[in-house]
Amino acid sequence: MTRSITIFDTTLRDGTQGEGISLSADDKLKIAVKLDELGVHYIEGGNPGSNGKDVEFFRRVQELDLKAKITAFGSTRRKGASAEDDENLQRIADSGAQAATLVGKSWDFHVYTALQTTLEENLAMIGDSIRFLKQRGLEVIFDAEHFFDGYKHNPEYAKLVLLTASESGADWLVLCDTNGGTMPNEIGDTVSALVEEMPAARFGIHTHNDCELAVANSLSAVSAGALQVQGTINGYGERCGNANLCSVLPNLQLKMGLHCLPEEKLALLAQTARYVSEIANVHMPAGQSYVGSAAFAHKGGIHVSAILRDSRTYEHIAPELVGNKQRVLVSELAGQSNLVSKAQELGIELDPKSPQASETIGRIKDLEHRGYQFEGADASLELLLREASGEVQELFTFESFKMLVEKSAGKPVISEAFVKLRIGGESLYTAGEGNGPVNALDNALRKALLQHYPQLTDMHLSDYKVRVLDDKEATASKVRVLIESRDAKSAWSTVGVSGNVIEASWEALVDSMRYALLGQEPVKAVALMEPRQGLLNH
Amino acid sequence: MTRSITIFDTTLRDGTQGEGISLSADDKLKIAVKLDELGVHYIEGGNPGSNGKDVEFFRRVQELDLKAKITAFGSTRRKGASAEDDENLQRIADSGAQAATLVGKSWDFHVYTALQTTLEENLAMIGDSIRFLKQRGLEVIFDAEHFFDGYKHNPEYAKLVLLTASESGADWLVLCDTNGGTMPNEIGDTVSALVEEMPAARFGIHTHNDCELAVANSLSAVSAGALQVQGTINGYGERCGNANLCSVLPNLQLKMGLHCLPEEKLALLAQTARYVSEIANVHMPAGQSYVGSAAFAHKGGIHVSAILRDSRTYEHIAPELVGNKQRVLVSELAGQSNLVSKAQELGIELDPKSPQASETIGRIKDLEHRGYQFEGADASLELLLREASGEVQELFTFESFKMLVEKSAGKPVISEAFVKLRIGGESLYTAGEGNGPVNALDNALRKALLQHYPQLTDMHLSDYKVRVLDDKEATASKVRVLIESRDAKSAWSTVGVSGNVIEASWEALVDSMRYALLGQEPVKAVALMEPRQGLLNH
Repeated sequence: MTRSITIFDTTLRDGTQGEGISLSADDKLKIAVKLDELGVHYIEGGNPGSNGKDVEFFRRVQELDLKAKITAFGSTRRKGASAEDDENLQRIADSGAQAATLVGKSWDFHVYTALQTTLEENLAMIGDSIRFLKQRGLEVIFDAEHFFDGYKHNPEYAKLVLLTASESGADWLVLCDTNGGTMPNEIGDTVSALVEEMPAARFGIHTHNDCELAVANSLSAVSAGALQVQGTINGYGERCGNANLCSVLPNLQLKMGLHCLPEEKLALLAQTARYVSEIANVHMPAGQSYVGSAAFAHKGGIHVSAILRDSRTYEHIAPELVGNKQRVLVSELAGQSNLVSKAQELGIELDPKSPQASETIGRIKDLEHRGYQFEGADASLELLLREASGEVQELFTFESFKMLVEKSAGKPVISEAFVKLRIGGESLYTAGEGNGPVNALDNALRKALLQHYPQLTDMHLSDYKVRVLDDKEATASKVRVLIESRDAKSAWSTVGVSGNVIEASWEALVDSMRYALLGQEPVKAVALMEPRQGLLNH
Repeated sequence: MTRSITIFDTTLRDGTQGEGISLSADDKLKIAVKLDELGVHYIEGGNPGSNGKDVEFFRRVQELDLKAKITAFGSTRRKGASAEDDENLQRIADSGAQAATLVGKSWDFHVYTALQTTLEENLAMIGDSIRFLKQRGLEVIFDAEHFFDGYKHNPEYAKLVLLTASESGADWLVLCDTNGGTMPNEIGDTVSALVEEMPAARFGIHTHNDCELAVANSLSAVSAGALQVQGTINGYGERCGNANLCSVLPNLQLKMGLHCLPEEKLALLAQTARYVSEIANVHMPAGQSYVGSAAFAHKGGIHVSAILRDSRTYEHIAPELVGNKQRVLVSELAGQSNLVSKAQELGIELDPKSPQASETIGRIKDLEHRGYQFEGADASLELLLREASGEVQELFTFESFKMLVEKSAGKPVISEAFVKLRIGGESLYTAGEGNGPVNALDNALRKALLQHYPQLTDMHLSDYKVRVLDDKEATASKVRVLIESRDAKSAWSTVGVSGNVIEASWEALVDSMRYALLGQEPVKAVALMEPRQGLLNH
């Protein structure tokens, strides 16, 4: 029989303790929908006792009628007071959540130092709070804070805390490695011992990544008998983060053969990870395990040759199982085989032995040397490859642009751009305003192009990144601009490099529009112009 | 007796297989010096058979006279040829490296599919190559590629590969989890079995992070008897990266009580990690275990109150042990205690009960709401806190700036800026050029300020980052600019937010100069002006 593991997501609560992460009630609701689609069993929404945003979340999430149980987080009652009079506990009971995650101290040192109370009072605080929440009809998940530290220093007291919680009616006993300092073998040994001593209890595990072991520690606890894993999407969380569910889930399911999500749901993992990173506005590392854009990306020439023969040579699972895909990176380390395989992927015919192929490789190497990076700019790379096979025609002949930003005390800043170019025989000179220089340039350029390519109306810029390439003299060094554009159907990325951020943006902007119009004819048909020089029409 | 573990760094070889990582020979030499200072035992410099850059590295590194052994990487000889005639093996032997890392196949599937040869020929390739390198006087570290996959599918052949390597004279047998798909318990069981079967051999471990388990897998192998760990600084490497030495080292040394580096050297870890990330030009995640800027950063109000009582409450080790430090983050989640502790850290007197304290908290919350983030801009935060205590005076009264970027076909792009401001009674109007708009603004502003504050000559901008805050309409949305500045003694970061990247840059620029001049008097002493409005003088 396959053991089932319950997945408890705390992205919306513990995840928001991470540096730079802040979610509105709307953001939280959007993420909750995605988590429910993924099939997690519990969604911890926040702390209704701490702020109004979370109260709003708990009210509105009820209207969504999700399959996952919604849980509200809070601490045990205050010392020396009753649970009934505790405002935080009342707010949890009133929040509308089906379950409560109640955090209590299990490390004697913390009882003395942080709570500044007695060991007996701490037990009473735990017992009273659980009974109160159970009487109000909530399922109670008891999070034993600092459990592993407590168990190491005073195992009898740590166990007494669990017994108290269990006898007071807690449905789950979750062992927390709050400071993230415990090793996998200690976690395993501790959980094994507890499972033996308290066979009727259901244990969960909550780990942090301070030793880069949060995922391993979760797996170790499950191997020892834990039945619930608490974690966050992308491992967001305080300090080094919580256990990353995007790694825990496929490890449990694909590697250890346990049952967590309905099988077809695991393929939603990569898009869930990206969605949450978009909403949280946190950059997702390319190298993130399983779900990162580089997780199945191959750079070394030898690896690529082998991958083309059989992908199992350098891939531990089929990327599709977690909704990811194989990518071949183009870089100076790569042999000709990378580029040819990239061309194949795009359906471009490029004979590896042709002079065009070696010329294109030379050109890409030269551009990379000058600071371009095509690993993050697939559309610019595709344009280069299609140029090699003669498929790309230029949109226009560039003559000039001017960009002016002006700010006077007490007045709003003004951005204006002026673009001069020719399409066929026609000379165009347009002006655009914007709330920033790139926006003004975009508007002026669009005004000119739309006269010939009305298809561009659908397309807009969706992300804009600037990277300084040589940080020794920041404002006098090269910058690389990456622009992401979207239309109703797809998204694509382009790159520009220059000592001047405006020029680099212009390059990426022009590439973005060239890509949008690939294979499309101008509506006002005109004779097209000479091939461009480099990436920018000088 | 404490067991000693040998540390093998492959940042310069396997690390450069990571997406977006490219190191020149100069970069590699600089990093090698830092690695040697840290005290790693082996530094793998690259593959002298694959490119000229690595040949240059091996030649020049000899002049540095490092304590670490330098090792050169390469594959076994080609099938059907002799080791003596193999150009790659010759280059390794001629490189000047003291040791060779020789990678060979140990998974039968790979012998058939990637090498396309017989199992016998693969053994001969391994044996011949090792004997050749040993005859040329090199220490040989044999990297058994895909060992764990091989052992799972054909354990007899995988062991035969190790025996062949050992009998041919290999000094180390390193078991590689090349695809990163193996679980910690499998690693541990396999290493235990081998240590028992081949008691005379010295085993090493080389893991990848595809399951977010590279660190755990390294520890698991060491617990089972492996004596060498191969990894990279910051975990750089192909796909999801290699085992991160910045986590492996403190785990082995501080948690498992093993001996790796001289004890005082571990405190160099955080600065080594930052240095390598600077040279590799790869952003270091704030949440990186042990060495990240958020690894000991506290955000939640309750945590901060406890930390102020006793840092062991929420820190698993003293941050200083790995050269890191405690930080308190200011954010909407934080209570008054965070801000007061931040002020204390800076030596600013701020009475938590004063109206100034609550006014400053309100102001910071409002700015955060508008997109400012002070977690990455300590200097801007310090200016706000010092303003609250009346310590900051304005440098100038802003009147206007104008910024012009112009580009014509075939000509270089031009950037010019014009700044109008008053210092005391004096009206200043200056013009500056630059190779980018922020550089031009910096030059124009500096030209004006230097007349009164010659101290600014020493300071320059060292990093410049732009982040789009709402990526729904990229070029028409708010951007946040972070500027890092340096002088001979220190570095500081400032922030600006606006719909306009130039205005946001101006804000961060002005803050950066205000911070540089904190507590300094103008040389041309003049009556100073009215307090500024917001972060920018409108």
